[in-house]
Amino acid sequence: VRGELFTPILAGGAVLDATSDEAWLQAMLDAEAALARAEAEVGVIGAEAAAQIVEACRVENFDVTILGQRARAGGNPVIPLVAALRSRLAGDARDAVHFGATSQDILDTAMVLVARRALAVIDDDLVHVTDLCAGLARRHRTTVMTGRTLLQPAVPITFGLKAAGWLVASIEAHLGLAETSLRLSAQLGGAAGTLALLGEDGPVVAEAYAAHLGLSEPVVPWHASRQRIAALGSALATVTGAMAKIATDLALLAQPEIGEVRFRAVGGSSTMPHKRNPVEATVARAAAIRSAGLVGVLLGALVTEHERPVGAWHAEWEAVNELLVLAGGAAAAVRSALAGLEVDAAAMAANLDATGGLVVAERFVGALTATLGGEEARSVVERLASEAQDPTAEAEFADLVRTCPEIVTALGMVEIERLLEPDTYLGSSDAFIERALATHHAVS
Amino acid sequence: VRGELFTPILAGGAVLDATSDEAWLQAMLDAEAALARAEAEVGVIGAEAAAQIVEACRVENFDVTILGQRARAGGNPVIPLVAALRSRLAGDARDAVHFGATSQDILDTAMVLVARRALAVIDDDLVHVTDLCAGLARRHRTTVMTGRTLLQPAVPITFGLKAAGWLVASIEAHLGLAETSLRLSAQLGGAAGTLALLGEDGPVVAEAYAAHLGLSEPVVPWHASRQRIAALGSALATVTGAMAKIATDLALLAQPEIGEVRFRAVGGSSTMPHKRNPVEATVARAAAIRSAGLVGVLLGALVTEHERPVGAWHAEWEAVNELLVLAGGAAAAVRSALAGLEVDAAAMAANLDATGGLVVAERFVGALTATLGGEEARSVVERLASEAQDPTAEAEFADLVRTCPEIVTALGMVEIERLLEPDTYLGSSDAFIERALATHHAVS
Amino acid sequence: VRGELFTPILAGGAVLDATSDEAWLQAMLDAEAALARAEAEVGVIGAEAAAQIVEACRVENFDVTILGQRARAGGNPVIPLVAALRSRLAGDARDAVHFGATSQDILDTAMVLVARRALAVIDDDLVHVTDLCAGLARRHRTTVMTGRTLLQPAVPITFGLKAAGWLVASIEAHLGLAETSLRLSAQLGGAAGTLALLGEDGPVVAEAYAAHLGLSEPVVPWHASRQRIAALGSALATVTGAMAKIATDLALLAQPEIGEVRFRAVGGSSTMPHKRNPVEATVARAAAIRSAGLVGVLLGALVTEHERPVGAWHAEWEAVNELLVLAGGAAAAVRSALAGLEVDAAAMAANLDATGGLVVAERFVGALTATLGGEEARSVVERLASEAQDPTAEAEFADLVRTCPEIVTALGMVEIERLLEPDTYLGSSDAFIERALATHHAVS
Amino acid sequence: VRGELFTPILAGGAVLDATSDEAWLQAMLDAEAALARAEAEVGVIGAEAAAQIVEACRVENFDVTILGQRARAGGNPVIPLVAALRSRLAGDARDAVHFGATSQDILDTAMVLVARRALAVIDDDLVHVTDLCAGLARRHRTTVMTGRTLLQPAVPITFGLKAAGWLVASIEAHLGLAETSLRLSAQLGGAAGTLALLGEDGPVVAEAYAAHLGLSEPVVPWHASRQRIAALGSALATVTGAMAKIATDLALLAQPEIGEVRFRAVGGSSTMPHKRNPVEATVARAAAIRSAGLVGVLLGALVTEHERPVGAWHAEWEAVNELLVLAGGAAAAVRSALAGLEVDAAAMAANLDATGGLVVAERFVGALTATLGGEEARSVVERLASEAQDPTAEAEFADLVRTCPEIVTALGMVEIERLLEPDTYLGSSDAFIERALATHHAVS
Repeated sequence: VRGELFTPILAGGAVLDATSDEAWLQAMLDAEAALARAEAEVGVIGAEAAAQIVEACRVENFDVTILGQRARAGGNPVIPLVAALRSRLAGDARDAVHFGATSQDILDTAMVLVARRALAVIDDDLVHVTDLCAGLARRHRTTVMTGRTLLQPAVPITFGLKAAGWLVASIEAHLGLAETSLRLSAQLGGAAGTLALLGEDGPVVAEAYAAHLGLSEPVVPWHASRQRIAALGSALATVTGAMAKIATDLALLAQPEIGEVRFRAVGGSSTMPHKRNPVEATVARAAAIRSAGLVGVLLGALVTEHERPVGAWHAEWEAVNELLVLAGGAAAAVRSALAGLEVDAAAMAANLDATGGLVVAERFVGALTATLGGEEARSVVERLASEAQDPTAEAEFADLVRTCPEIVTALGMVEIERLLEPDTYLGSSDAFIERALATHHAVS
Repeated sequence: VRGELFTPILAGGAVLDATSDEAWLQAMLDAEAALARAEAEVGVIGAEAAAQIVEACRVENFDVTILGQRARAGGNPVIPLVAALRSRLAGDARDAVHFGATSQDILDTAMVLVARRALAVIDDDLVHVTDLCAGLARRHRTTVMTGRTLLQPAVPITFGLKAAGWLVASIEAHLGLAETSLRLSAQLGGAAGTLALLGEDGPVVAEAYAAHLGLSEPVVPWHASRQRIAALGSALATVTGAMAKIATDLALLAQPEIGEVRFRAVGGSSTMPHKRNPVEATVARAAAIRSAGLVGVLLGALVTEHERPVGAWHAEWEAVNELLVLAGGAAAAVRSALAGLEVDAAAMAANLDATGGLVVAERFVGALTATLGGEEARSVVERLASEAQDPTAEAEFADLVRTCPEIVTALGMVEIERLLEPDTYLGSSDAFIERALATHHAVS
Repeated sequence: VRGELFTPILAGGAVLDATSDEAWLQAMLDAEAALARAEAEVGVIGAEAAAQIVEACRVENFDVTILGQRARAGGNPVIPLVAALRSRLAGDARDAVHFGATSQDILDTAMVLVARRALAVIDDDLVHVTDLCAGLARRHRTTVMTGRTLLQPAVPITFGLKAAGWLVASIEAHLGLAETSLRLSAQLGGAAGTLALLGEDGPVVAEAYAAHLGLSEPVVPWHASRQRIAALGSALATVTGAMAKIATDLALLAQPEIGEVRFRAVGGSSTMPHKRNPVEATVARAAAIRSAGLVGVLLGALVTEHERPVGAWHAEWEAVNELLVLAGGAAAAVRSALAGLEVDAAAMAANLDATGGLVVAERFVGALTATLGGEEARSVVERLASEAQDPTAEAEFADLVRTCPEIVTALGMVEIERLLEPDTYLGSSDAFIERALATHHAVS
Repeated sequence: VRGELFTPILAGGAVLDATSDEAWLQAMLDAEAALARAEAEVGVIGAEAAAQIVEACRVENFDVTILGQRARAGGNPVIPLVAALRSRLAGDARDAVHFGATSQDILDTAMVLVARRALAVIDDDLVHVTDLCAGLARRHRTTVMTGRTLLQPAVPITFGLKAAGWLVASIEAHLGLAETSLRLSAQLGGAAGTLALLGEDGPVVAEAYAAHLGLSEPVVPWHASRQRIAALGSALATVTGAMAKIATDLALLAQPEIGEVRFRAVGGSSTMPHKRNPVEATVARAAAIRSAGLVGVLLGALVTEHERPVGAWHAEWEAVNELLVLAGGAAAAVRSALAGLEVDAAAMAANLDATGGLVVAERFVGALTATLGGEEARSVVERLASEAQDPTAEAEFADLVRTCPEIVTALGMVEIERLLEPDTYLGSSDAFIERALATHHAVS
């Protein structure tokens, strides 16, 4: 067997089911059934034949493994599937199977169906991720913590603002995915995109076919124009990337030396009894590393030859399936991580306090500029900040400020103490949280 | 110097200008100027100071090379740019420069401005590409040629249908790019995304800033949420891929053994006097190969640490710039190739004819099914098709059909001759061309 | 199930077996068994316990699917495997299982074992590919054909030289793969690379462990230094790329309008009875598109955090497995294609002849330079070449040369006819074939 | 201008010079000069002509910008370069320029020369990186610190062992690069790889040409077999990845909440006066993100058409150049970071101590197994480890162990205290450092 040992680590149940071989096979059968229905409606094939075809198009009637083995000769699984489907039928029904279609019509439509079904699962996890982020943003609106840039303390933020950033990113990634999903049209073009066997009936059959499948119709068949697939892949990788960003922040905050969050579900070790590994963050990050490479496959597959390419199409199937699995796995992992997240506001406050006021150094430049001029203000504050960060320093920045004659003269002690308070240096944090929550509300 | 020897091969003048170091520098200065204006309007800085800043923000006041050298120490060019800008000013104006912003605010906004300016150039080429495709689709509606799948003859198509496929793909790629362009918001967040130095005025300054630049406002600052950049890159690579698809078809059709199209502009050789290299197709294809890899960079850069990452952001600048250059170069190359394309309808007819009727073999299965049943119909036609393709074959498929007793009996000679006519086996080609042209009309 | 419907299309039996879940599981068990043996030899665990462990380490004792499901909690399959292994044992043997190792020791060693076993399969196909190329190079040493650059006729070559190029590329790719294989060391470092539980015995246990597995020993554990894996992936993708180059040439030569080669094994169509699709070439090309993206995953995974990373390692497993499958599939496909290749020397000669002498135009510049000077020589020949390639041209290049007064005067008719003969314009073709065959001989 | 504003941020002077447009142009001229010399030695051209050509082949005789503009028409800069070179010469010398070569011969050879010259610069930085790592490994052999896996404390290591890991990775990456460098052969094949214009003299000219350039000779021309370029790219990205791994560890250790290392050179901020950004680590990490994508370009370029491809070759030039710049930049950045590194052994000890003994929890399972059996031993230790890590815990792990009746009974207090000592739980750390240093010694 394949894909049973590693794939479940990166992705859970529902998305795995939606992307299994059986799911693909059923989707191909759904396409064949929709084709038969559409052709019967238009009168291209008989109603009775169509009914028999539809009846036969159930995954339990076929053996995935055998079809896979037989797929090698012709290079795709539809050829043996059509043969197997015909062998279950007789007479008109047998002859009516797959009429006017080409393998790629069925497989592309199946890819689209599989994607849309998997996206429903991913959607659900993304909705929960955004809801959880919104909850964190709301609850931690005033939980002050260290803003960090390049892994160094910058200025104070709130944990609510951080969660609001995750929220907006998740919403945007989700909307991007939804947009590409809408563009996932049905495929029906026949051998070279002319629907030649259907004579004049091509467009009307294609319309009915798409309608039966609940899919949009393309302007023209897209056998050799793979942008919707590349766009899907890119949107999936973007979701995964957005999840990995959250995962990365969480894993960094959970470092015990920082200790600002804890995961409820942690992974053990095969040898260390104390281990509390951030497994959810780990799989989301792994998914992002993989996805970035897989999108390149789909972009490479845009360069097709003539009406159907020599290889580019064959490169897509597994890449698309993996991107679905990875996005689903990452969304589920982050959902789970956020649902079980313990936020340690005290640790956040303590770490912020441990900067000794450096996180508000910027503010003193602003405050001193009026009196000292910008250049001198920066120079004074930079000198104190540098002194405070010397490894042998004995005083922290706040104390150096409090005892700096120029600053004391310029601002006075009351103002100095006010300025040293990180809670009053949050700028638009609250306004931004508000906007993020409003956006969430608008799309919920 | 750098970028003067190879870059002009892949891309021409306007897009190069729009992506030059000077273009980036002016865009950074535009951001600083817009910030000053916005802050003056809100009263954060003085009107006179703002006017002086705006006046100073012209690229000719600065030396790109020196700024680049000074950029290394802090890891970005905004730090030395702000210093250089201040050194040109005095008093309040000097102190008011860059107030409340961080380097990334300026550089991200500049990236967005550069992208939008370059996109205007690319747009122009894409509009011409779609117009040229539409012209070909219209003119060659009835130019019958061989449809080819996996580089082998499939069924007849028209050259108009092929061009219609290019047309729809170009339109879709163009629309996708336009959508991502709209999402390219201004950036203004200050040190860690709180606009702390601006106190309560953050949102209103940010709004004015975006308005001055003609950019949309983001929900929250996007320092560490890079989806719009990844989406831009993906859309650019999709444009390039769509162009490379056209280029590939052209290069294949221009093989002299096929000879169905010729390029007006061909490249010579440093040694062969007869060479007529498809240079335009070559550079479009090269651009696609490069773009597929570069998007991976931007997807990799989605995984950011906290409020600003340790490396991911720095990886974007040149990747984005190259993707703009490559998309612009590919669009210009394909525009030029299509504008100078000579279509040889006679060669198309001759190549189609040389298949000896194989391209309509599919049709005979359909026609014979009524009489012989599908299985027997396929079996008979496959036998003749196989015989005709034997290297030692003496008769072509059409003749084998004409002399096959089963087929003659089933269909009669008149019907056989009708079925052998490729012009009557074009299915929905015309309808699809019509739809493509209507789509083009709708977006023009 | 997963991987049964599509994977067999791109890769055949032996490499699939070597990369199955069971193959990975057995490799993990081989690592555990080797560890037990090594530790018993050094006296870290008892000989009897080791014997029981070794006895239990057979894949049929375990259920891949259950292990995969249990792997999610801890993020890797070794944790549940160790538990399952322990549950089959009692007493000292149970306690001795996995002693001193960490999950990654077992899984990395398993990855190396799987890779080496799969490489043996790939080796076999590559040896056949090189032998087949050598055969073609030898047999077609004097089969003259059109050399083509940018898909346009350049100068004459022999099909033997083309095959010699494939041969050298295949040999180099094969050697590159063999080199990276040698660097695939065993992994044994314990929890954080110190082998702490083994006290002083670490190095001697590690040495015995590697020896039992037939693997080289690394200088230090490589939990967080993944270059050998990236190098393996890159070497595999290079093999796949070398195969796809051959596949591309074959697919292009097999275009019926060119018709210089034919495939014995061709793929049919689900609708077109005449189709002879180059399936082998198609899957090799698809494999190359996918591999280029997958290597990016492994390069991305080089950036690890501390003693074991948060995601990078987890990203490797399936990427490595796919790269093995794709290289194996591509090598097998090209082997099969070459084994069944029909070369049509007459078609090669005819296509060359159809260039009307353009392929030797370069030669006339050389020949005329002595008399006319280089500039004038190029100018004359370029004019004739251009005239001959005008779509309305009535005379071919050879005839224009024969009737060009300047050329006739300069060279005389006898020399002109000699120069027009492509067989005498093959330069070092034969010498290069000889060198390629000698290289093949040296490595066989 | 291009490449002056951002490129210097990621890479410093020497590697920039080695990869400038002028460096490429001089390398092309070196190739033309070597060709002239070689042909004169063999008597293909006159000695005097060759001398004049050699004399003319100096970069200062040519204008990069003009050549770049003229390169577009033919798709490569060699065509205008040959024209410009001819226009500087007269008579025989003019006619003898570039005789028998094709553009790709010159440009491929130039790419190889540029790469080798840039590699010399990169080598120098890598040697310093390894020397610095070796120094750290030696000096910090006994500096005990927390080993961290998945960003959580694992078991104790020494900082010397961490540096030894960097050392071995750097050496391996360096050796890998050196190997690929050796395979960078000269290129000389003429129009389609036959050296037709040189008649019988091809091999001997090619040999002399390679010798003049100090390059190895390939078995056959490699116009359409690009593995050496892909291997070079992969080796460069591996170097960059190895550097980024060190950079990542450093950036994580420099987080002030961890504070185990400090950088001497830190980057400021355009707004925050206290900022000490790890700029060197940042640029090395950015370089790795970009490199992973760029290698995909070179792997994509392996799939070439016939004797010279339609785009794949054109995709290589800038990708190769960037990979050189990025590897050079990353090596220089890490060299600088290591040279200025301050290691805070006290902070390392303090962080280790702050784990409260958890880092030796693994050891207690081992120690208790003899008395309690493995299962019970694990169970007891896991319980205490879990208790100690509860956010509301009042006692640390060490204290829980000291007061756990089962453990006290089993081991006694003396042994417990010994086991709690991290310095005695370093396993093979020292032996591994020794091996790493010996390896370094062997390659130095």
